[in-house]
Amino acid sequence: MGFLLDWSRVPELDDDPALWAGPLRLMAELEAGAVANPDEGRQVGHYWLRAPDLAPEAYREPIRAAARECLRLAREIHREKKYRTLLLLGIGGSALGPEFLGTALREPEDPMRLMVLDNTDPEGMARVIGPLDLEEVLVVCVSKSGKTPETRNALIEVQAAFARAGVAFEAQAIAISQEGSALWEAAAGWRARLPMWDWVGGRTSVCSAVGLLPLALQGVDTEAFLEGAAAMDAATRAGAAGGGDIMQNPALVLARCWYTLGTGHGDRAMVVLPYRDRLLLFSRYLQQLVMESIGKERDLKGRVVRQRLTVYGNKGSTDQHAFVQQLREGPDDHFTTLIGLWEDGFYGEEVEPGIDAGDYLQGMLLGTREALSAAHPVIGLWMQTVDAFRLGALVALYERAVGLYAFRIGINAYHQPGVEAGKKAAAAVLALKAPLLAAIAALPGGEARTAPELAALAGLPAQQAEVCWHLLTRLAANGQIAATPGGQPSQDRFQAA
Amino acid sequence: MGFLLDWSRVPELDDDPALWAGPLRLMAELEAGAVANPDEGRQVGHYWLRAPDLAPEAYREPIRAAARECLRLAREIHREKKYRTLLLLGIGGSALGPEFLGTALREPEDPMRLMVLDNTDPEGMARVIGPLDLEEVLVVCVSKSGKTPETRNALIEVQAAFARAGVAFEAQAIAISQEGSALWEAAAGWRARLPMWDWVGGRTSVCSAVGLLPLALQGVDTEAFLEGAAAMDAATRAGAAGGGDIMQNPALVLARCWYTLGTGHGDRAMVVLPYRDRLLLFSRYLQQLVMESIGKERDLKGRVVRQRLTVYGNKGSTDQHAFVQQLREGPDDHFTTLIGLWEDGFYGEEVEPGIDAGDYLQGMLLGTREALSAAHPVIGLWMQTVDAFRLGALVALYERAVGLYAFRIGINAYHQPGVEAGKKAAAAVLALKAPLLAAIAALPGGEARTAPELAALAGLPAQQAEVCWHLLTRLAANGQIAATPGGQPSQDRFQAA
Repeated sequence: MGFLLDWSRVPELDDDPALWAGPLRLMAELEAGAVANPDEGRQVGHYWLRAPDLAPEAYREPIRAAARECLRLAREIHREKKYRTLLLLGIGGSALGPEFLGTALREPEDPMRLMVLDNTDPEGMARVIGPLDLEEVLVVCVSKSGKTPETRNALIEVQAAFARAGVAFEAQAIAISQEGSALWEAAAGWRARLPMWDWVGGRTSVCSAVGLLPLALQGVDTEAFLEGAAAMDAATRAGAAGGGDIMQNPALVLARCWYTLGTGHGDRAMVVLPYRDRLLLFSRYLQQLVMESIGKERDLKGRVVRQRLTVYGNKGSTDQHAFVQQLREGPDDHFTTLIGLWEDGFYGEEVEPGIDAGDYLQGMLLGTREALSAAHPVIGLWMQTVDAFRLGALVALYERAVGLYAFRIGINAYHQPGVEAGKKAAAAVLALKAPLLAAIAALPGGEARTAPELAALAGLPAQQAEVCWHLLTRLAANGQIAATPGGQPSQDRFQAA
Repeated sequence: MGFLLDWSRVPELDDDPALWAGPLRLMAELEAGAVANPDEGRQVGHYWLRAPDLAPEAYREPIRAAARECLRLAREIHREKKYRTLLLLGIGGSALGPEFLGTALREPEDPMRLMVLDNTDPEGMARVIGPLDLEEVLVVCVSKSGKTPETRNALIEVQAAFARAGVAFEAQAIAISQEGSALWEAAAGWRARLPMWDWVGGRTSVCSAVGLLPLALQGVDTEAFLEGAAAMDAATRAGAAGGGDIMQNPALVLARCWYTLGTGHGDRAMVVLPYRDRLLLFSRYLQQLVMESIGKERDLKGRVVRQRLTVYGNKGSTDQHAFVQQLREGPDDHFTTLIGLWEDGFYGEEVEPGIDAGDYLQGMLLGTREALSAAHPVIGLWMQTVDAFRLGALVALYERAVGLYAFRIGINAYHQPGVEAGKKAAAAVLALKAPLLAAIAALPGGEARTAPELAALAGLPAQQAEVCWHLLTRLAANGQIAATPGGQPSQDRFQAA
């Protein structure tokens, strides 16, 4: 398949290999349809997306139909030659996969270019939307639940921009969501709707329409992408049910390296350095895949374990002129995964006698490997080239390594309970705005009050005064109310504008 | 100045405040011209770049002249209306600052757009250069030493592209380097040369021509940028020489937070989450500034200390759908810096009654602050807006915090000895190519050899065989030699193509 995983610069993997039989069995059960995400009562089926024959009977045709529909839609849209920009609305797993893959596989001759709205920053959205000619923009809105607020907000901003420009939105919009979700229903009159399923998690959704449609629209060979993922899946089942040497299973080797290097608790961070500009976003993609899957308070038995596996990195050799200084000289708190490509993709000039820029890139990689591995573990991952097949395989390799590692440490890799607390707290903050504005509106003309006073007038508990100050200060900065600075925040006074 | 630093969600700063008198004094000495980078025998003068009156007499006019020349050049170039693209060649400190600031301050109406070559990846360079109309490209090549290989290679590729396109390069190129460097000399016939000085380090060079020229060309108000940095410098001298309460010095407060939160050894990582798309690259910029400055094996007395201060992050609320899961539920191994903006910059649609997307962005920030600070320290940094003045101030705030922190833990923040080892090892790898190709050329016609055999034929030590295999495999992948796979790498056979 054109991959080489090199763990020769990792200290001996000294855990008992027999302890990996359980994770391999659990992964096999997961692939056979077990409820592997117990607290959400969900199956975990991203492997089926690239091998529908292995899926439960009822899922096979829907998987195939959705993949076909992505291709059909892309072909139809390309034939129309109307759309130049694919504007993807999504956040987290609904954006990072397409963004990583789209960046990695972008070519100058692509029929469409990908742009992303992945936040609820109104200015950030305006900066993307503003310069666009909306007549040539196809919008793909991705939200599995159909109620992700950031994506909902982006959709509202985009629809308003279409309305302002006098361009009909619905004919140029496609939704990807679970059937029956709010987004699914709202999109009834759109150009198309494509399904998500509850057995696909956001951070492993890139082989569903979430990844396939944007890639197909960009002109990527999505069949090769799925084939690469399926081929890596086949290779990373080795060792299951006694089927061969587990060390022939690259995902298991990776997981075993992570386990050994972090003593099963993520004691070392995973630094990821691909030596290829195309792969710049891979570490950010992995950061989500790994940290959202592994960073868990409790194990499957409910015990507090506070697991982690921290991921960071950008690209080599660029990062050698940045944080690699600390990797070299700082404490032994990390292992590095160096990713090298054999094919240069472009043959450059001679920069010294007999040496070109690609020689330098490889030299920097191998040199840094020497320098780092003198004191720190280094995993080497070599790939033939960056193409759709290899990227499918790369995604599948890490998806399975994460799954095996999570089973090994006894946690649920497929939920994200910690994400909820911030959302709930955000809703509580938003609920303060209306009573604060009402309290200001009710002030006698020309009078001003401090944040603690306004919180009290709005009937809010005193400990909310500080958060109220933040809301009031932003409202004043945006001209919605007026502010008079005090000596310190609690003395700032606010009034109607 | 429109900044609020909030350390109310940091545990009590319980170190002895008197211990910060030394760092404040050392910073004052540094600003007075002391050799603060002892093993390189250099002064450290980035503060002088925004307050030349405080610089040693001999440096004042050169600083002012270079800043004037950046503005003059930019005005002249804008008047010509010939150039639309600024192609910056640089790596590390010669690229990250302009890239961060250029992205943060980009506006649709800018006279020029910034593109960067910051690696020695030939394909990555071709992907940037290929689509450009070189007639409208102004090249700015930045290398302080003038011999950074990645930048040298990028320059060669760009010059070759100009030659292929029949466009005269020299009239469209500007060099920024130390006077007398190889680049400086090579650029004698270019449109312009601007100086770097040995008392400015790469990662703190953004107030020199390295940052000023690209910003001015992009249309940014560089005078406001320098004023913001100078104003923050003035504010962050508070407490020096007994001049007031050290807790009125925001850089010292930041450094003291870092010290307390990491017990002086970086025991917690610094997660940086700006809630504004414009600031996406700030964490990468800080990652370099902090980790390259703080990640040191030895302290100023030569003792092995292996210091670190790990930085990662992208932006909120996007990252809430990614690694924030681990921040919430994983171990207490980090503190988060949340950065909020008061001015929205763009007023969006109502997304719920009385609520807009900007309310959500603030709600997510404050909600995540609640959720995280229940178990982990959170620093809040609020800014009025993202403009040239505030970004100058932001850069200066962190530059001084890093300096104070480094003096507090007794290390040299201004060198990067760990970067050298990788460079030397890379040179050793590059030196293998010629003897390996010679060994292959000397093989009897049609014969093939393994990497260990070819290493021996090339007179290389046996332990080099593995590195030789990597070189040979890449040469084969790029068609320069031929390869026949063996059962494993040491059995792969190579021969002339």
